[in-house]
Parts: sequence; C-alpha cells; structure tokens
Amino acid sequence: MDEVIADVIPKFINLYNRDFGVPLDLVIEPGNEVFKQVPQDVNQKWFEYINEKGFFRDLAVIPDSQRVIKALQEKYDVYIVSAAMEFRNSLEDKYDWLAEHFPFIDWQHIMFCGNKIVEVDVLIDDRIKNFVNFKGRPLLYTSPHNLLITEYERVNSWEEIAGLLL
Amino acid sequence: MDEVIADVIPKFINLYNRDFGVPLDLVIEPGNEVFKQVPQDVNQKWFEYINEKGFFRDLAVIPDSQRVIKALQEKYDVYIVSAAMEFRNSLEDKYDWLAEHFPFIDWQHIMFCGNKIVEVDVLIDDRIKNFVNFKGRPLLYTSPHNLLITEYERVNSWEEIAGLLL
Repeated sequence: MDEVIADVIPKFINLYNRDFGVPLDLVIEPGNEVFKQVPQDVNQKWFEYINEKGFFRDLAVIPDSQRVIKALQEKYDVYIVSAAMEFRNSLEDKYDWLAEHFPFIDWQHIMFCGNKIVEVDVLIDDRIKNFVNFKGRPLLYTSPHNLLITEYERVNSWEEIAGLLL
Repeated sequence: MDEVIADVIPKFINLYNRDFGVPLDLVIEPGNEVFKQVPQDVNQKWFEYINEKGFFRDLAVIPDSQRVIKALQEKYDVYIVSAAMEFRNSLEDKYDWLAEHFPFIDWQHIMFCGNKIVEVDVLIDDRIKNFVNFKGRPLLYTSPHNLLITEYERVNSWEEIAGLLL
C-alpha cells in the first residue's frame, strides 16, 4: 500500500511542516528515507505520527493505481498485501481507506501482514526486504528510498505496470 | 484463530442465551454450525454479534495452544493467519487478543487476510476451503462443523499437534 498505491511521503512532510516548519517542497535525496531528510532532533517524530489514529486514513492515492488495478483484475487475481501489522492503529484506517478508494477489491483479496509469505506470481513492492525469499517476478515500485537499488526490475508508475502486465 | 486457538462457539452460545434463552449446554451436532443449532427465527443474529466491536476480544484460549505454539516456535517459523478481513471490527480485537494471549508472536508473524494464499509447509485450520489450493500438509483442526469431513488428516487437540510436529 504505502508508496505503491498510498502516498505516505507528503503526509509525513505536511506533519513535519506543521510542527517544525520543514519546507513543504522538501526533496528526498535518492536512497534516503523522509525521516532522515528532516532535522536530526525531530526525525524520530515519524514514529509518533505513524502510530496516530488517522495517519493512514487520508493519504492521497498514487496516480493511475485505481484504474490500472481495475484493469489488472480482468486478467489476474489481484491482492493487496500490506505490512500493516507493525502499526496496530493503522489497521482500521487502511481497511477504510481501501473501502473508499478501492471498493472493487473484496475482503478476500486484502491481506495485512508482517512478513509477506505469499504465494503469488508477481509482487509489486517498494521494499526489497519483501523480495528476499520471493520466487516469482518482483517489480520494484520506485520510491525515493529505493532509487539507488539496481538489482531488481523497476517500475516508475502504474502506467508502466500497465505496459508490462496488461 | 477462531476454533483453533480462539474459542468462538461458547461466545455465540452465551450471546444467544442472553438474548433468546438458548441453553448454555447447547450441543452442536456433528457437521453443524452454531447458528444452525439455534431457533430459526434468531439464527441470523450471529452476523450482528460477530460484527460488534469486542466480540473477538474476550474469547477463551483453546487449551494448550499457547504452550504448544511456543514449543513449535523452537523448531518452526510459526505464523498466525486469520481470515479477519471479513469483519472490519474484528481487526483491533484480534490484534489485541493476540498481544494479550500470544505475546511471544511478533507482528512479522501475524497475518489478517481473506483467502489464505500463504506459502507454508503445514496449515492448521478448521475450514477445508482454506485447503483447496494448498500444496503443503493440511491439518484439519476438529470443530463441530467439520466432524463429518474425512478427506484430511485430522487433529483433535494441540496435544495431538505436539505429538505430530514436535
């Protein structure tokens, strides 16, 4: 979900801006995490933000993800697999966010997990840790933090995913 | 979780007893679901019960499951995989219930899903629908509703699971 269909970085920047005046046009350097791009004395604040109820509820939808996933459903059995278990307070927010923005994905095809031990053919993810034991085709969805990684097939947009899989 | 480590049937019977005087010593006939064992005019009430916040929070722990799962962790990578997504209001309750009764299972090893498309060697489950596309060793955990099923290896208790897997 995060960084693939749900845009989490602007939410962090907005909160850092509200509380510490971090500029709204903050650019994350390639390979960097948003919380390492803010002043060091406040960077651990991300953990408080992300554990707040509501954090995941109003994230923007990554462009084209709704349209392309709907099209993928015609050809594939599409699952949303999110490492939501790290944050207890994210569970209902993520559930409600999906119901609002992806109502065409039924509950049978949603999975909140920790380790992604799923048996699937293609895994679209921004975190390479999820590719470690994966035997299918991994597609690394571009996010600032993974820009320096070269060992995986990369997708920069849902438009590109459509080109590859449809 | 339900019917394997969390005892959901007594909870249903207690609620049917509270609201409709269904006897607390109600016995579920082999092959039957609890909601089919209560008077027909109230049997759909189960859907209301199960969608209430708190329903899953105070379920009793199935005997020996804590001790045996702890022992299994020494030898296996143990995951809790629960079809929680059907009931939005179950998510936090199930998370908190696990934190209380199975604090030795970390978030990486918990999965709330719909279809159980997990890549594992052994799947302990009370519902045979979860075995349909499963390529590993299925163990059918005995529950009244599955008592007439004969085509799977059956386990009647966590003590039996310990005998098989430890």
